[in-house]
Amino acid sequence: MRILVTNDDGIDSPGIHALVGAMRRLGDVDVVAPDRQQSAVGHALTVASPLRATPFYRDGSMFGWAINGTPADCVKLGVSTLLEHRPDIVVSGINHGSNTSVNAIYSGTVSAATEGTLMGIPSMAVSLCDFDHSADMSLAADVAEAVARRLLQLQLPQGTLLNVNVPAIPRHEFRGIRLARQGHNSWDDGYEVRRDPQGRPYYWLTGKFVTISRLDDADDALVGEGFAAVTPLHYELTNFDEYQRLLSFGFEL
Amino acid sequence: MRILVTNDDGIDSPGIHALVGAMRRLGDVDVVAPDRQQSAVGHALTVASPLRATPFYRDGSMFGWAINGTPADCVKLGVSTLLEHRPDIVVSGINHGSNTSVNAIYSGTVSAATEGTLMGIPSMAVSLCDFDHSADMSLAADVAEAVARRLLQLQLPQGTLLNVNVPAIPRHEFRGIRLARQGHNSWDDGYEVRRDPQGRPYYWLTGKFVTISRLDDADDALVGEGFAAVTPLHYELTNFDEYQRLLSFGFEL
Repeated sequence: MRILVTNDDGIDSPGIHALVGAMRRLGDVDVVAPDRQQSAVGHALTVASPLRATPFYRDGSMFGWAINGTPADCVKLGVSTLLEHRPDIVVSGINHGSNTSVNAIYSGTVSAATEGTLMGIPSMAVSLCDFDHSADMSLAADVAEAVARRLLQLQLPQGTLLNVNVPAIPRHEFRGIRLARQGHNSWDDGYEVRRDPQGRPYYWLTGKFVTISRLDDADDALVGEGFAAVTPLHYELTNFDEYQRLLSFGFEL
Repeated sequence: MRILVTNDDGIDSPGIHALVGAMRRLGDVDVVAPDRQQSAVGHALTVASPLRATPFYRDGSMFGWAINGTPADCVKLGVSTLLEHRPDIVVSGINHGSNTSVNAIYSGTVSAATEGTLMGIPSMAVSLCDFDHSADMSLAADVAEAVARRLLQLQLPQGTLLNVNVPAIPRHEFRGIRLARQGHNSWDDGYEVRRDPQGRPYYWLTGKFVTISRLDDADDALVGEGFAAVTPLHYELTNFDEYQRLLSFGFEL
């Protein structure tokens, strides 16, 4: 089995290191990842400038390719151009921080897996629900290995990926892996205004994640109860209920 | 009516100028838009650096706020912080280029409308299916006005936006506005490898849009037949069919 590993925290992050260790137990690993932190980058592609691919070394041997682009760029460039062999699966992570609920929309980690499944490759994203960069990654790495082992058997349709969120808890409190749906929770956010030494304002995004609705089988609810949540996501964005309802409205011009 | 206008081509683009002209026929317009081209930026938010808001002048008066960020940043910063009054609707565009089918995933134009609807404001994205920056925007502007007039009456649920794609055709060939679903077409793309004067490779994204499946009511099919396509999109990303199917699979750890 050939596994393409990428992330959005950058090729030198602890999360990708832990993920590569776990994936090497499954097969041959190629790493193509951003050369720097790319969080909240969404499903961006670099079109207005060219990409560079630089060999990245760790412990004296080549660890992978560092790209001056986004996670989606890494998957597209890796699969189409850099790698000699097409991967059997794409695994993105381990992200430092939750990608449950609305976070999936903003997530570079999820976007890499989306790009993989759009290219016809079984793909998954893995996140540890803890922003601390010194957090223990070993449970999340074991969950990633377990889900990756199943991924090839699942035969997901093209365009559907698995979004895996792992709680940041001690292993003896971990309750197992559960299938989930995307939650409906979101951010209550705004900007903190500061002034530079010249008195001009600048704006920092701040916010806290708030519970809007509780669904027992939602990704964030399951993580809160000590489960790793596995959510099948796709990019069929049409709201078909609204489509049916709006057919009765006309649009005059 | 108060309309917040933004885009992803930048505050100095012809598309936003045409859109502001059309929206002023409906009410008071505020403009908060990126200070530079942001295409294929996806649903990115700027979290690792602060935002700046600079007054942008056109024809001797203030046209709007130019932001060193993404379209989603513009909506979030505008609504939460910059604007004195909360907008009644958010309109993003007019984008130079199609946002049908898979393009919606990569689109900064669509992401701005997504951010608006996530904030509870009726929102729409408008794109002219022509990448030529000298293209005639007047038909797309009239379509934007017609759809915006209906948007408040439609009472879309929070999280659902209208994605409007207008064909680049002469007005006498235009056949009207139709409700659509997101198409399933995509890009056949790759990278063109070039070498710099030092002989090191760099990679340009290239590709062409290809028809994968034909659906009569898909956005790109309708645009191809001379209609403006209005697609209700939402960010309920769970693939519920797969969720049901995968419940029978276990994940052992």
